[in-house]
Amino acid sequence: MAITITVFERALDDGRGLARDMRVRWALEEVGQPYEVRLVAWEKFKQEAHLARNPFGQIPTYEEGDLTLFESGAIVLHIAERFAGLLSKDAHARARAMMWMFAALNTVEAPILERQSAFFAARGKSWQGEHMAMIDARIRGRLGQLAARLGGDEWLDGAFSAADIIMVHVLKRLEGSGLLEEVPNLAAYIARAQARPAYQRAFAAQLALWEANK
Amino acid sequence: MAITITVFERALDDGRGLARDMRVRWALEEVGQPYEVRLVAWEKFKQEAHLARNPFGQIPTYEEGDLTLFESGAIVLHIAERFAGLLSKDAHARARAMMWMFAALNTVEAPILERQSAFFAARGKSWQGEHMAMIDARIRGRLGQLAARLGGDEWLDGAFSAADIIMVHVLKRLEGSGLLEEVPNLAAYIARAQARPAYQRAFAAQLALWEANK
Repeated sequence: MAITITVFERALDDGRGLARDMRVRWALEEVGQPYEVRLVAWEKFKQEAHLARNPFGQIPTYEEGDLTLFESGAIVLHIAERFAGLLSKDAHARARAMMWMFAALNTVEAPILERQSAFFAARGKSWQGEHMAMIDARIRGRLGQLAARLGGDEWLDGAFSAADIIMVHVLKRLEGSGLLEEVPNLAAYIARAQARPAYQRAFAAQLALWEANK
Repeated sequence: MAITITVFERALDDGRGLARDMRVRWALEEVGQPYEVRLVAWEKFKQEAHLARNPFGQIPTYEEGDLTLFESGAIVLHIAERFAGLLSKDAHARARAMMWMFAALNTVEAPILERQSAFFAARGKSWQGEHMAMIDARIRGRLGQLAARLGGDEWLDGAFSAADIIMVHVLKRLEGSGLLEEVPNLAAYIARAQARPAYQRAFAAQLALWEANK
């Protein structure tokens, strides 16, 4: 059954692959599944056709037959459960992979999203710098805790899994902030993930789309 | 096999059940599983014994035999997969329940956490009011989108599921803000969930602990 995902018609990340469709593209490449892309223009996100796919008017969404999903974490988890390669068959390792997916999206991404909204929403405010410094201190705390657990390991929990896709992409949202460079084992973890052929293919696909529509 | 969860020795919510152990207690009550509680004192969160359970030094954690999990979303999902009653057997309904869990914890909770950190971290700053008004506008947007999708339905997707536990508890973090009262169908949804006997038992258990340790 054909898989269709929605992506931004024009992403605002200069082709850097920071939008959340990248997580889904990467997961689909890891499991070797082809997919179709449905472009959504900015002015269409809050219209009925897209709200029927995602009530919060965001990308990505995932359609396969009569199943429609939103939330990148849920989509990547669904792909990992449906196709082999991204989740261990061991029940405990599988539960821990899900744990790391939730940790990435709730515990690690929360202050990173806060940094983004402070960056955009508080632009021009006299207090933006003070506010961002407070957020950065919290992000540094979380990155330090994650780095301590990862140590010298290659991936979060044994073999590469869906959790690494989500965690690496969440961390990449800090690119340009200088915060990742302070934590060498996390920087190396991200570089290791980006060297995977599946990541490279997914990145090239989103970049080609950005080049075509810029 | 005995289940042990960690909870705050002294929660700071005046017994209102807003700490994340409430989600896990509620899920365990829904599936009828007994559990033990391990109290963690504030000064112990960043010590090795607790960091071994959760590298981010948070509660709740879940221990069962040689499996240790952190992240309330992952723990509730694990309980729902391990015991009957909180996830449909239909594969699509199950995928959508996971989708709503991620939506609650990433899309809905993100600005709510931001509100909490603005409330505490920016206390005494001249810009706190302006900042919180900006966040509240975003929360109102998300609540409106959620309310539009829920409409007059009883639960998020057909039968009550693990997703309703997470969503209701995330929304409850807005208690006292006045924001929930603006959205009658969400307020009714929360009230309906709180009327469940399993919720009542979980709430009473955390309240008894708070009363004993206050």
